[in-house]
Amino acid sequence: MIQIYTGNGKGKTTAAIGLGIRAIGHGYKVLMVQFMKGEEVYGEIKALKKIPNFDVYQFGLKTFVKKGDLRKEEIEIAKKGLDFAQEKIKSKEYFLVILDEINVAIDYGLIPLKDVIDLIKNCPKEVELVLTGRYCPKELYDYADLISEINEIKHPFQKGIFNRRGIDY
Amino acid sequence: MIQIYTGNGKGKTTAAIGLGIRAIGHGYKVLMVQFMKGEEVYGEIKALKKIPNFDVYQFGLKTFVKKGDLRKEEIEIAKKGLDFAQEKIKSKEYFLVILDEINVAIDYGLIPLKDVIDLIKNCPKEVELVLTGRYCPKELYDYADLISEINEIKHPFQKGIFNRRGIDY
Repeated sequence: MIQIYTGNGKGKTTAAIGLGIRAIGHGYKVLMVQFMKGEEVYGEIKALKKIPNFDVYQFGLKTFVKKGDLRKEEIEIAKKGLDFAQEKIKSKEYFLVILDEINVAIDYGLIPLKDVIDLIKNCPKEVELVLTGRYCPKELYDYADLISEINEIKHPFQKGIFNRRGIDY
Repeated sequence: MIQIYTGNGKGKTTAAIGLGIRAIGHGYKVLMVQFMKGEEVYGEIKALKKIPNFDVYQFGLKTFVKKGDLRKEEIEIAKKGLDFAQEKIKSKEYFLVILDEINVAIDYGLIPLKDVIDLIKNCPKEVELVLTGRYCPKELYDYADLISEINEIKHPFQKGIFNRRGIDY
Protein backbone atom coordinates (compact mmCIF):
# COMPACT_ATOMS: atom_id res chain seq x y z
CA MET A 1 0.00 0.00 0.00
CA ILE A 2 0.98 3.60 -0.51
CA GLN A 3 1.03 6.11 2.35
CA ILE A 4 1.57 9.87 2.07
CA TYR A 5 2.50 12.24 4.91
CA THR A 6 2.26 15.84 3.78
CA GLY A 7 1.23 19.30 5.01
CA ASN A 8 3.07 22.22 6.56
CA GLY A 9 3.17 20.85 10.11
CA LYS A 10 5.91 19.12 12.03
CA GLY A 11 5.91 15.33 12.14
CA LYS A 12 6.14 13.99 8.59
CA THR A 13 9.62 12.48 8.60
CA THR A 14 9.32 11.51 12.25
CA ALA A 15 6.01 9.72 11.55
CA ALA A 16 7.72 7.73 8.81
CA ILE A 17 10.63 6.86 11.11
CA GLY A 18 8.18 5.75 13.78
CA LEU A 19 6.43 3.54 11.22
CA GLY A 20 9.81 2.03 10.44
CA ILE A 21 10.53 1.35 14.11
CA ARG A 22 7.15 -0.35 14.42
CA ALA A 23 7.88 -2.52 11.39
CA ILE A 24 11.31 -3.63 12.58
CA GLY A 25 9.71 -4.45 15.93
CA HIS A 26 7.85 -7.15 14.05
CA GLY A 27 11.04 -8.37 12.41
CA TYR A 28 10.73 -6.61 9.07
CA LYS A 29 13.38 -4.69 7.14
CA VAL A 30 13.03 -0.98 6.46
CA LEU A 31 14.65 1.32 3.92
CA MET A 32 14.62 5.10 4.03
CA VAL A 33 15.80 6.99 0.97
CA GLN A 34 16.20 10.68 1.75
CA PHE A 35 15.98 13.27 -1.00
CA MET A 36 17.45 16.76 -0.70
CA LYS A 37 19.25 15.81 2.53
CA GLY A 38 22.98 15.30 2.35
CA GLU A 39 24.25 15.74 5.84
CA GLU A 40 24.63 13.29 8.64
CA VAL A 41 24.04 15.92 11.31
CA TYR A 42 20.46 14.74 11.40
CA GLY A 43 19.92 12.89 14.68
CA GLU A 44 17.73 10.40 12.87
CA ILE A 45 20.66 9.26 10.71
CA LYS A 46 22.98 8.81 13.65
CA ALA A 47 20.43 6.83 15.61
CA LEU A 48 19.14 4.75 12.72
CA LYS A 49 22.66 3.69 11.72
CA LYS A 50 22.82 1.84 15.02
CA ILE A 51 19.50 0.07 14.54
CA PRO A 52 19.70 -3.21 12.64
CA ASN A 53 17.31 -3.65 9.72
CA PHE A 54 16.70 0.08 9.29
CA ASP A 55 18.80 1.25 6.34
CA VAL A 56 19.13 4.91 5.42
CA TYR A 57 20.59 6.36 2.23
CA GLN A 58 20.86 10.04 1.42
CA PHE A 59 20.62 11.42 -2.10
CA GLY A 60 21.18 15.11 -1.64
CA LEU A 61 24.02 17.59 -1.62
CA LYS A 62 25.15 19.51 1.42
CA THR A 63 24.03 22.76 -0.14
CA PHE A 64 20.54 24.21 0.02
CA VAL A 65 18.32 23.63 -3.04
CA LYS A 66 16.78 26.81 -4.44
CA LYS A 67 13.43 26.39 -6.15
CA GLY A 68 13.50 27.90 -9.63
CA ASP A 69 17.29 27.81 -9.70
CA LEU A 70 18.16 24.10 -9.80
CA ARG A 71 21.67 22.89 -10.45
CA LYS A 72 22.49 19.94 -12.68
CA GLU A 73 24.14 18.00 -9.83
CA GLU A 74 21.01 18.37 -7.73
CA ILE A 75 18.83 16.87 -10.43
CA GLU A 76 21.34 14.08 -11.08
CA ILE A 77 21.60 13.02 -7.46
CA ALA A 78 17.80 13.06 -7.07
CA LYS A 79 17.49 10.84 -10.13
CA LYS A 80 20.08 8.48 -8.68
CA GLY A 81 18.00 8.29 -5.51
CA LEU A 82 14.86 7.47 -7.43
CA ASP A 83 16.63 4.77 -9.48
CA PHE A 84 18.07 3.29 -6.30
CA ALA A 85 14.64 3.27 -4.64
CA GLN A 86 13.05 1.69 -7.70
CA GLU A 87 15.60 -1.11 -7.73
CA LYS A 88 15.19 -1.81 -4.00
CA ILE A 89 11.40 -1.77 -4.24
CA LYS A 90 11.50 -4.20 -7.15
CA SER A 91 13.80 -6.55 -5.22
CA LYS A 92 11.20 -6.85 -2.41
CA GLU A 93 14.12 -6.88 0.02
CA TYR A 94 12.35 -4.39 2.28
CA PHE A 95 8.89 -4.60 3.86
CA LEU A 96 8.70 -0.82 4.17
CA VAL A 97 10.32 1.75 1.89
CA ILE A 98 10.25 5.44 2.89
CA LEU A 99 10.91 8.09 0.26
CA ASP A 100 11.66 10.98 2.57
CA GLU A 101 11.02 14.52 1.25
CA ILE A 102 10.19 13.17 -2.19
CA ASN A 103 7.08 15.37 -2.35
CA VAL A 104 9.29 18.45 -2.06
CA ALA A 105 11.67 17.05 -4.68
CA ILE A 106 8.74 16.72 -7.09
CA ASP A 107 7.41 20.18 -6.26
CA TYR A 108 10.85 21.71 -6.82
CA GLY A 109 11.18 19.95 -10.18
CA LEU A 110 14.09 17.73 -9.13
CA ILE A 111 12.06 14.64 -9.93
CA PRO A 112 9.35 14.37 -12.60
CA LEU A 113 5.90 13.56 -11.16
CA LYS A 114 5.41 10.99 -13.92
CA ASP A 115 8.43 8.98 -12.74
CA VAL A 116 7.00 8.79 -9.22
CA ILE A 117 3.61 7.70 -10.53
CA ASP A 118 5.36 4.96 -12.52
CA LEU A 119 7.28 3.89 -9.43
CA ILE A 120 4.02 3.65 -7.46
CA LYS A 121 2.29 1.73 -10.23
CA ASN A 122 5.14 -0.77 -10.36
CA CYS A 123 5.39 -1.18 -6.59
CA PRO A 124 4.88 -4.85 -5.64
CA LYS A 125 1.93 -5.47 -3.31
CA GLU A 126 4.28 -6.88 -0.67
CA VAL A 127 6.05 -3.56 -0.27
CA GLU A 128 4.61 -0.74 1.85
CA LEU A 129 5.64 2.57 0.31
CA VAL A 130 5.70 5.83 2.28
CA LEU A 131 6.12 9.27 0.70
CA THR A 132 6.85 12.27 2.89
CA GLY A 133 7.25 16.00 2.45
CA ARG A 134 5.12 19.10 2.18
CA TYR A 135 3.71 20.27 -1.16
CA CYS A 136 2.57 16.79 -2.21
CA PRO A 137 1.06 17.20 -5.67
CA LYS A 138 -2.66 16.44 -5.60
CA GLU A 139 -2.21 14.14 -8.62
CA LEU A 140 -0.49 11.65 -6.30
CA TYR A 141 -3.50 11.47 -3.98
CA ASP A 142 -5.31 9.19 -6.42
CA TYR A 143 -2.53 6.63 -6.17
CA ALA A 144 -2.30 6.58 -2.36
CA ASP A 145 -4.21 4.34 0.03
CA LEU A 146 -3.57 6.45 3.11
CA ILE A 147 -2.98 10.19 3.26
CA SER A 148 -2.26 12.13 6.45
CA GLU A 149 -2.04 15.87 6.16
CA ILE A 150 -0.13 17.36 9.06
CA ASN A 151 -1.10 20.94 9.70
CA GLU A 152 0.73 23.45 11.79
CA ILE A 153 -1.59 24.93 14.39
CA LYS A 154 1.16 26.51 16.43
CA HIS A 155 4.93 26.57 16.03
CA PRO A 156 7.73 28.01 18.17
CA PHE A 157 8.95 29.87 15.03
CA GLN A 158 6.29 32.31 16.14
CA LYS A 159 8.36 32.89 19.26
CA GLY A 160 11.57 33.26 17.24
CA ILE A 161 12.81 29.77 18.10
CA PHE A 162 14.31 27.90 15.18
CA ASN A 163 16.01 24.55 14.72
CA ARG A 164 16.98 22.85 17.94
CA ARG A 165 19.46 19.98 18.11
CA GLY A 166 17.83 16.70 19.06
CA ILE A 167 14.35 18.02 18.30
CA ASP A 168 14.24 19.46 14.80
CA TYR A 169 17.21 17.64 13.29
CA MET B 1 8.86 23.11 25.34
CA ILE B 2 5.51 21.41 24.93
CA GLN B 3 4.51 19.67 21.71
CA ILE B 4 1.07 18.28 20.86
CA TYR B 5 0.27 15.80 18.08
CA THR B 6 -3.46 15.42 17.66
CA GLY B 7 -6.13 15.00 14.96
CA ASN B 8 -7.90 12.00 13.44
CA GLY B 9 -5.12 11.05 11.02
CA LYS B 10 -2.46 8.40 11.19
CA GLY B 11 0.99 9.38 12.43
CA LYS B 12 0.67 10.80 15.94
CA THR B 13 2.39 8.07 17.97
CA THR B 14 4.81 7.33 15.14
CA ALA B 15 5.76 11.04 14.91
CA ALA B 16 6.55 11.00 18.63
CA ILE B 17 8.62 7.83 18.27
CA GLY B 18 10.52 9.40 15.38
CA LEU B 19 11.22 12.45 17.54
CA GLY B 20 12.58 10.11 20.17
CA ILE B 21 14.85 8.37 17.66
CA ARG B 22 16.17 11.74 16.53
CA ALA B 23 16.89 12.76 20.14
CA ILE B 24 18.73 9.55 21.00
CA GLY B 25 20.75 10.05 17.82
CA HIS B 26 22.18 13.10 19.53
CA GLY B 27 22.89 11.15 22.70
CA TYR B 28 19.83 12.11 24.73
CA LYS B 29 17.55 9.89 26.81
CA VAL B 30 13.88 9.43 25.91
CA LEU B 31 10.91 8.22 27.93
CA MET B 32 7.57 7.18 26.49
CA VAL B 33 4.67 6.68 28.90
CA GLN B 34 1.75 5.04 27.13
CA PHE B 35 -1.78 5.48 28.40
CA MET B 36 -4.63 3.10 27.55
CA LYS B 37 -2.20 0.66 25.96
CA GLY B 38 -1.43 -2.50 27.90
CA GLU B 39 -0.19 -4.98 25.39
CA GLU B 40 3.24 -5.64 24.08
CA VAL B 41 1.97 -6.75 20.68
CA TYR B 42 2.69 -3.23 19.49
CA GLY B 43 5.72 -3.36 17.18
CA GLU B 44 6.94 -0.10 18.63
CA ILE B 45 7.33 -1.68 22.08
CA LYS B 46 9.24 -4.66 20.76
CA ALA B 47 11.61 -2.53 18.74
CA LEU B 48 12.10 0.20 21.32
CA LYS B 49 12.97 -2.31 24.03
CA LYS B 50 16.06 -3.13 22.01
CA ILE B 51 17.10 0.50 21.61
CA PRO B 52 19.25 1.88 24.41
CA ASN B 53 18.14 5.18 25.99
CA PHE B 54 14.54 4.85 24.78
CA ASP B 55 12.45 3.68 27.72
CA VAL B 56 8.80 2.71 27.34
CA TYR B 57 6.28 2.11 30.13
CA GLN B 58 2.67 1.16 29.61
CA PHE B 59 -0.11 2.22 31.95
CA GLY B 60 -3.16 0.55 30.49
CA LEU B 61 -5.09 -2.68 30.84
CA LYS B 62 -5.38 -5.27 28.13
CA THR B 63 -9.09 -4.61 27.80
CA PHE B 64 -10.67 -1.92 25.67
CA VAL B 65 -11.70 1.29 27.48
CA LYS B 66 -15.33 2.32 26.85
CA LYS B 67 -16.01 6.03 26.98
CA GLY B 68 -18.87 6.77 29.40
CA ASP B 69 -18.43 3.40 31.10
CA LEU B 70 -15.06 3.65 32.84
CA ARG B 71 -13.89 1.05 35.32
CA LYS B 72 -12.15 1.92 38.58
CA GLU B 73 -9.00 -0.03 37.58
CA GLU B 74 -8.74 1.94 34.36
CA ILE B 75 -8.79 5.26 36.21
CA GLU B 76 -6.32 3.98 38.79
CA ILE B 77 -3.77 2.78 36.28
CA ALA B 78 -4.02 6.03 34.30
CA LYS B 79 -3.39 8.00 37.50
CA LYS B 80 -0.38 5.81 38.21
CA GLY B 81 0.95 6.61 34.76
CA LEU B 82 0.53 10.33 35.30
CA ASP B 83 2.23 10.20 38.71
CA PHE B 84 5.09 8.20 37.20
CA ALA B 85 5.48 10.69 34.35
CA GLN B 86 5.39 13.63 36.77
CA GLU B 87 8.15 12.12 38.87
CA LYS B 88 10.36 11.37 35.86
CA ILE B 89 9.82 14.84 34.39
CA LYS B 90 10.74 16.43 37.71
CA SER B 91 13.94 14.34 37.91
CA LYS B 92 15.15 15.77 34.55
CA GLU B 93 16.52 12.31 33.82
CA TYR B 94 15.07 12.44 30.30
CA PHE B 95 15.58 15.04 27.57
CA LEU B 96 12.30 14.06 25.91
CA VAL B 97 9.18 12.70 27.60
CA ILE B 98 6.31 11.41 25.46
CA LEU B 99 2.86 11.01 27.01
CA ASP B 100 1.35 8.75 24.38
CA GLU B 101 -2.45 8.81 23.97
CA ILE B 102 -2.82 11.13 26.96
CA ASN B 103 -5.18 13.37 24.98
CA VAL B 104 -7.58 10.45 24.61
CA ALA B 105 -7.20 9.60 28.30
CA ILE B 106 -8.26 13.17 29.16
CA ASP B 107 -11.13 13.13 26.69
CA TYR B 108 -12.39 9.82 28.09
CA GLY B 109 -12.24 11.18 31.64
CA LEU B 110 -9.50 8.80 32.79
CA ILE B 111 -7.27 11.76 33.68
CA PRO B 112 -8.47 15.19 34.82
CA LEU B 113 -7.49 17.99 32.43
CA LYS B 114 -6.43 20.10 35.40
CA ASP B 115 -3.80 17.53 36.43
CA VAL B 116 -2.25 17.63 32.96
CA ILE B 117 -2.20 21.43 32.96
CA ASP B 118 -0.42 21.30 36.34
CA LEU B 119 2.07 18.80 34.97
CA ILE B 120 2.80 21.09 32.01
CA LYS B 121 3.13 24.15 34.24
CA ASN B 122 5.63 22.32 36.45
CA CYS B 123 7.64 20.87 33.56
CA PRO B 124 11.29 22.01 33.83
CA LYS B 125 12.53 24.02 30.84
CA GLU B 126 15.19 21.39 30.14
CA VAL B 127 12.56 18.73 29.41
CA GLU B 128 10.81 18.51 26.05
CA LEU B 129 7.28 17.22 26.62
CA VAL B 130 5.22 15.59 23.86
CA LEU B 131 1.49 14.84 24.16
CA THR B 132 -0.17 12.60 21.61
CA GLY B 133 -3.66 11.37 20.84
CA ARG B 134 -6.77 12.51 19.06
CA TYR B 135 -9.41 14.65 20.82
CA CYS B 136 -6.87 16.97 22.42
CA PRO B 137 -8.89 19.43 24.52
CA LYS B 138 -8.56 22.95 23.12
CA GLU B 139 -7.77 24.23 26.63
CA LEU B 140 -4.36 22.56 26.30
CA TYR B 141 -3.50 24.48 23.13
CA ASP B 142 -2.70 27.59 25.19
CA TYR B 143 -0.02 25.69 27.07
CA ALA B 144 1.71 24.19 24.02
CA ASP B 145 4.55 25.69 22.00
CA LEU B 146 4.06 23.45 18.98
CA ILE B 147 0.82 21.85 17.80
CA SER B 148 0.55 19.56 14.78
CA GLU B 149 -2.91 18.45 13.80
CA ILE B 150 -2.80 15.32 11.68
CA ASN B 151 -5.84 15.01 9.48
CA GLU B 152 -7.00 11.96 7.66
CA ILE B 153 -7.45 12.72 3.98
CA LYS B 154 -7.71 9.10 2.92
CA HIS B 155 -7.54 5.86 4.85
CA PRO B 156 -7.63 2.20 3.76
CA PHE B 157 -10.52 1.69 6.24
CA GLN B 158 -12.50 3.02 3.32
CA LYS B 159 -11.42 -0.06 1.39
CA GLY B 160 -12.31 -2.34 4.32
CA ILE B 161 -8.70 -2.83 5.35
CA PHE B 162 -8.12 -2.65 9.08
CA ASN B 163 -5.14 -3.09 11.36
CA ARG B 164 -2.11 -4.63 9.72
CA ARG B 165 0.79 -6.11 11.64
CA GLY B 166 3.96 -4.06 11.31
CA ILE B 167 2.09 -1.05 9.99
CA ASP B 168 -0.73 -0.12 12.33
CA TYR B 169 0.56 -1.74 15.52
